[in-house]
Amino acid sequence: MMHKFKEKLFIIIFEANTPAGKAFDVCLLIFIFLSIILVMLESVQSIRVLYGEQIRFLETIITGIFSLEYALRVYVSHRPFRYMRSFFGLVDLLSILPFYIGLFFMGSHNLIVIRVLRLLRIFRIFKFTRYTRESNHLLQALLNSRAKLTVFVMAVSTLVTIFGSLMYLIEGDENGFTSIPQSIYWAIVTLTTVGYGDIAPQTNFGRFISSLVMIVGYAIIAIPTGIVGYEITQVSKNAMNTRVCPNCMAEGHDFNANFCKACGAKLPANQL
Amino acid sequence: MMHKFKEKLFIIIFEANTPAGKAFDVCLLIFIFLSIILVMLESVQSIRVLYGEQIRFLETIITGIFSLEYALRVYVSHRPFRYMRSFFGLVDLLSILPFYIGLFFMGSHNLIVIRVLRLLRIFRIFKFTRYTRESNHLLQALLNSRAKLTVFVMAVSTLVTIFGSLMYLIEGDENGFTSIPQSIYWAIVTLTTVGYGDIAPQTNFGRFISSLVMIVGYAIIAIPTGIVGYEITQVSKNAMNTRVCPNCMAEGHDFNANFCKACGAKLPANQL
Amino acid sequence: MMHKFKEKLFIIIFEANTPAGKAFDVCLLIFIFLSIILVMLESVQSIRVLYGEQIRFLETIITGIFSLEYALRVYVSHRPFRYMRSFFGLVDLLSILPFYIGLFFMGSHNLIVIRVLRLLRIFRIFKFTRYTRESNHLLQALLNSRAKLTVFVMAVSTLVTIFGSLMYLIEGDENGFTSIPQSIYWAIVTLTTVGYGDIAPQTNFGRFISSLVMIVGYAIIAIPTGIVGYEITQVSKNAMNTRVCPNCMAEGHDFNANFCKACGAKLPANQL
Amino acid sequence: MMHKFKEKLFIIIFEANTPAGKAFDVCLLIFIFLSIILVMLESVQSIRVLYGEQIRFLETIITGIFSLEYALRVYVSHRPFRYMRSFFGLVDLLSILPFYIGLFFMGSHNLIVIRVLRLLRIFRIFKFTRYTRESNHLLQALLNSRAKLTVFVMAVSTLVTIFGSLMYLIEGDENGFTSIPQSIYWAIVTLTTVGYGDIAPQTNFGRFISSLVMIVGYAIIAIPTGIVGYEITQVSKNAMNTRVCPNCMAEGHDFNANFCKACGAKLPANQL
Repeated sequence: MMHKFKEKLFIIIFEANTPAGKAFDVCLLIFIFLSIILVMLESVQSIRVLYGEQIRFLETIITGIFSLEYALRVYVSHRPFRYMRSFFGLVDLLSILPFYIGLFFMGSHNLIVIRVLRLLRIFRIFKFTRYTRESNHLLQALLNSRAKLTVFVMAVSTLVTIFGSLMYLIEGDENGFTSIPQSIYWAIVTLTTVGYGDIAPQTNFGRFISSLVMIVGYAIIAIPTGIVGYEITQVSKNAMNTRVCPNCMAEGHDFNANFCKACGAKLPANQL
Repeated sequence: MMHKFKEKLFIIIFEANTPAGKAFDVCLLIFIFLSIILVMLESVQSIRVLYGEQIRFLETIITGIFSLEYALRVYVSHRPFRYMRSFFGLVDLLSILPFYIGLFFMGSHNLIVIRVLRLLRIFRIFKFTRYTRESNHLLQALLNSRAKLTVFVMAVSTLVTIFGSLMYLIEGDENGFTSIPQSIYWAIVTLTTVGYGDIAPQTNFGRFISSLVMIVGYAIIAIPTGIVGYEITQVSKNAMNTRVCPNCMAEGHDFNANFCKACGAKLPANQL
Repeated sequence: MMHKFKEKLFIIIFEANTPAGKAFDVCLLIFIFLSIILVMLESVQSIRVLYGEQIRFLETIITGIFSLEYALRVYVSHRPFRYMRSFFGLVDLLSILPFYIGLFFMGSHNLIVIRVLRLLRIFRIFKFTRYTRESNHLLQALLNSRAKLTVFVMAVSTLVTIFGSLMYLIEGDENGFTSIPQSIYWAIVTLTTVGYGDIAPQTNFGRFISSLVMIVGYAIIAIPTGIVGYEITQVSKNAMNTRVCPNCMAEGHDFNANFCKACGAKLPANQL
Repeated sequence: MMHKFKEKLFIIIFEANTPAGKAFDVCLLIFIFLSIILVMLESVQSIRVLYGEQIRFLETIITGIFSLEYALRVYVSHRPFRYMRSFFGLVDLLSILPFYIGLFFMGSHNLIVIRVLRLLRIFRIFKFTRYTRESNHLLQALLNSRAKLTVFVMAVSTLVTIFGSLMYLIEGDENGFTSIPQSIYWAIVTLTTVGYGDIAPQTNFGRFISSLVMIVGYAIIAIPTGIVGYEITQVSKNAMNTRVCPNCMAEGHDFNANFCKACGAKLPANQL
């Protein structure tokens, strides 16, 4: 009977497609958002001064709930250590650890980032079937364009380094280009069309080079867009194509295919 | 006879494809633009001081016209309540209400936004056949990419929250990153490549992290572009593909095709 | 004989594909660039003070050359008035007119823009076959997406007006949002991700709304990109397809077409 | 025997697909990155003051290594002069030259850019098969869109010149638009959506024109994206499409296809 209870809990906690499992996940999401909002509010000085006490109280409660959840997850897992070492297992641990460390060490202000990492838990939402498929598509498209994107990032890095060094020579210390790393920072700000304006060229020649950097940045944004766009098209096309070979079960046949590309068997006519 | 008059009015007011209906809609558009321009002019202090009287006079006239129009729309509708509860029915009401409320309550300055909502009425223009089709295509493409865009917005939100918190720790109060929400605002300004420069990193490590945020923002803009681009292609393709050869059932004929490209049979005339 | 000479001149001046015609066009381009550079240099105060005399002298010479060219174009044209009323005819006239007006009226400083319009003449370069085709493709793609882009620009205009008015209420006069037109300017600066930072939200709620505007601007840039990208693909595909019906000479058949879509005749097999 | 040793060295130095060649290239990459980091560190004043001595020492060692490498490359080349005149031959020479010039001439501060050009050497990484294919695809796509991009850049240049001159007249000297070149710089900053904010329009009419420039810039970024996106699709498709069925000549088989999708015949093994 204990085993059956554990099994039931497992389904509630780890599955998202039963009503109870869905309710559990939705509750969890609410608590995650709440805890993130608490972290944010605590960082605002005027609020911290007024409601610091209450925020810390709610924080304690939510951490308690998360701790209980973590314990339950470990308890119902068939292989507890595998869960604990998994990505979500580590994220779950990280979302309660800062609180306990903060109990023992004062000035644990820096743990705020770890507490914010709780946000990663909302990616559990991708267990809901609809989003799983979509996020898998996007991830697949990004993975497929990995090599092309690497080449692109390398070319961009080289470009900003060379342009940055050039501007360091042209503009120099007195115009805010105090060192090459600083100038590379400027080149990135400019090439990505962010353009803070905290460092901006003052000399005529510097402005001319800047114009070049801007036009290059404006034009080459077409490259990642083209790469990722092509891969999204490919992934979506393949996803639409649900034809399966009746002989060898291979998938991913073209719309106009008459024969299986894997085993050469005749495919049934395309129903689409 | 009264009934016939009402029917005629209905066609003028609600249809856009008769000459009278078109004339009515064009008049209306002119009044809408005029009323928006009045709201804008009234908000400019130097103009308000000089011409406030005249602006309020014109405003009263235009509201009168809109009120008359609203009354007529309710009068000629076959199901008045259905019209009043429809999107455009509510927008029509909202475009006259602020004026009447302003008569009774002083300091109705805040109603300006509601008055600006009149602008939504220009979307009536989409009744003109040409734009209906185009806006439907775009809406369809956006609807189809809804799930993928949701995943994208969630990932971006998580990213800016984590990067924002990180920068809050690195830069801190003294460099303008006064709280986590503030830092998230900065992260959004940077990731979307807007880059006001009102908050900008001052430390070297902060600038390094900023560079990462910028490059990420520059690269991932490819994702929504790829998603929407793919869906626009799909929707446009499907729109082209509604003609079928009555002889061989081949699809995908061009708009200007008279004969089937596959078997040479005569195609029925294009209905579009 | 006079007639033959005129014919020869016509080919040199109006055609770009003979050696003499090409040489003529290249010379012209050089003079156009030179005259634009002169206009630019004259606008720089330090240069105007030092070399104003020389610049005006060169300007006179170049205008003389352009005047001669204009006279020749009118002279050799078969239908002089048709040339004079054509787009390039008007641009040619505009490129010499400011000089002559400046002789009679002092303070013709404002004619500088008209002088800069000379730059439009460089589009004659599109006569060179290679660029003609490419620019026709791009123009065709833009024309095809005209209706969709109009819908998009209307939606964006409505968006910036509503967001602008909202921010005018939220931020108000004291934070730089002095009027609705001003706030709309801010909304455009933000939505297009330009982000000067000359007007930036100061209140928390204003920053929240700004974040929304930025994310919307970042996401919807995907729409024009998708539209134009699709049309460029279509135009390029059609351009690649040079199959002509042997019966009715219709063009633009699909790759997999067996029969002419215009007259139903059998097409020769695709050689591609 | 000497010849055999030379041959072996050649394979290590110039080939990347043997274990020894790969190790050589990886070592080289590390030294290149190290030397770039040294250049960067030396440009930071606080570091130069403290560790200038050490940096120059490491610099000398690395230049020695690079000199040795250059000598070896010349030595093992079958046609030394051809290597020396090649792109990478020149880059290799440029990466050691500044040091030797600096020995004879003082104040060789300006040589910093040439030293940074060493970074170009990391493109040797494209010898690794995976990246070669990807970078070739991207280069091919860019080459194919050359003519269209030229037309686009010309149109953009004309646009910024005309808009820049217009703004020079509207805003004038007192609002930072001190000359036409300056105003063109502003127009580029705005059109590319960089938006530093160092020069920003102050007058109402100037802000109206600026809004136009921004919206144009926001919309036409779709054009290069569409161009490059189309070409990337074409290049990727062609890369996929090199397999032909020996039985029915059908093309367009997937990479993992073993049998023809049109006739079911066995395909020859994929050579890629």
